[in-house]
Amino acid sequence: MRGRLITLEGGEGSGKSTQARHVRDWLQARGREVVLTREPGGTPLAEAVRELVLHRWDEGMTPATELLLMFAARAAHVHALIEPALARGADVVCDRYIDSSHAYQGARGVDGVHLAALEALAIPGTMPDLTLVLDLPPDLGLERARARGVGNRFEDEALAYMARVREIFLARARQAPQRCVVVDASVSAEQVAAAIDAVLGARL
Amino acid sequence: MRGRLITLEGGEGSGKSTQARHVRDWLQARGREVVLTREPGGTPLAEAVRELVLHRWDEGMTPATELLLMFAARAAHVHALIEPALARGADVVCDRYIDSSHAYQGARGVDGVHLAALEALAIPGTMPDLTLVLDLPPDLGLERARARGVGNRFEDEALAYMARVREIFLARARQAPQRCVVVDASVSAEQVAAAIDAVLGARL
Repeated sequence: MRGRLITLEGGEGSGKSTQARHVRDWLQARGREVVLTREPGGTPLAEAVRELVLHRWDEGMTPATELLLMFAARAAHVHALIEPALARGADVVCDRYIDSSHAYQGARGVDGVHLAALEALAIPGTMPDLTLVLDLPPDLGLERARARGVGNRFEDEALAYMARVREIFLARARQAPQRCVVVDASVSAEQVAAAIDAVLGARL
Repeated sequence: MRGRLITLEGGEGSGKSTQARHVRDWLQARGREVVLTREPGGTPLAEAVRELVLHRWDEGMTPATELLLMFAARAAHVHALIEPALARGADVVCDRYIDSSHAYQGARGVDGVHLAALEALAIPGTMPDLTLVLDLPPDLGLERARARGVGNRFEDEALAYMARVREIFLARARQAPQRCVVVDASVSAEQVAAAIDAVLGARL
């Protein structure tokens, strides 16, 4: 029986990586084989593309280049890791996936038509069974990300941009209620984990 | 006055790099500023993507991933090098460009609709003023490439694939006679250069 693909989405500092490990533990405690992975990345090729995306290039990076690199990494990830795992019956927990492309590149003005075309090319049919959208105000998220001390190009972005990203995440969750659940991520990690437990118990 | 974009296309061993330098010399002898570049590559970011494309990955590389990486490199190249050069009045001579994507990825079965969508996203409007298609039989091209001792993933491809690549190059040249000129590349480098001189004299 095919495994389930569970994705965690949200802005910087929303606790996706911590909660992804929590989801993995929840599933493993119920006897499931689980593959924990992340985007961009997840395979050697996709991780190499990730390095290019997060690097600060003197020449800059246009939204088109960023978008194409993100989907190149995703196509490799789906092909070499996600689909083989699902096919053998393992569950896959992925820190960021397709909704992040829509939110981050969409907030930068990339046309939804281009996003849909790339989605059709890169991941024909591999959509999540459950997406947890970890939601919090951008100022709180950036504060947390900075406290963690891990800076990259995305964390340089202005609050206004992060606010657009948040709106797109929430809009996509509203449009796909069978797939997406919004979780309040402004509270403590323990409280977020408890809210996620309730969602997993009800949905899986 | 805007410069001119001149591209060289063709299969392995067709002598594109040698003839690209020849075209640069021809233009410089006529007082033009010339930027000589190549695809995939041409800027630090695009060259880094090139490395990923040419590497032999244990996980393999799907046609979709390859296609997305190629267009990511192209979008960076057009943005950071080709367009600025053309805008300041320099001519740009480029070893491979959009026709190579159509030929190589098309021959691998990628849908033309996807190629057109990526073209619209990555290079809105930056089409060559002149494309020299260096044509030769695939067996001769592979023999030359091997003699040169530079192997990469593409040069592993079977002759049948290279034959499809050649057909697409020739078909695209037939469809765009204002832009493309087919040059017989099965003869000596000096003879190819002489044929190119005639084309440049007539077209530029």
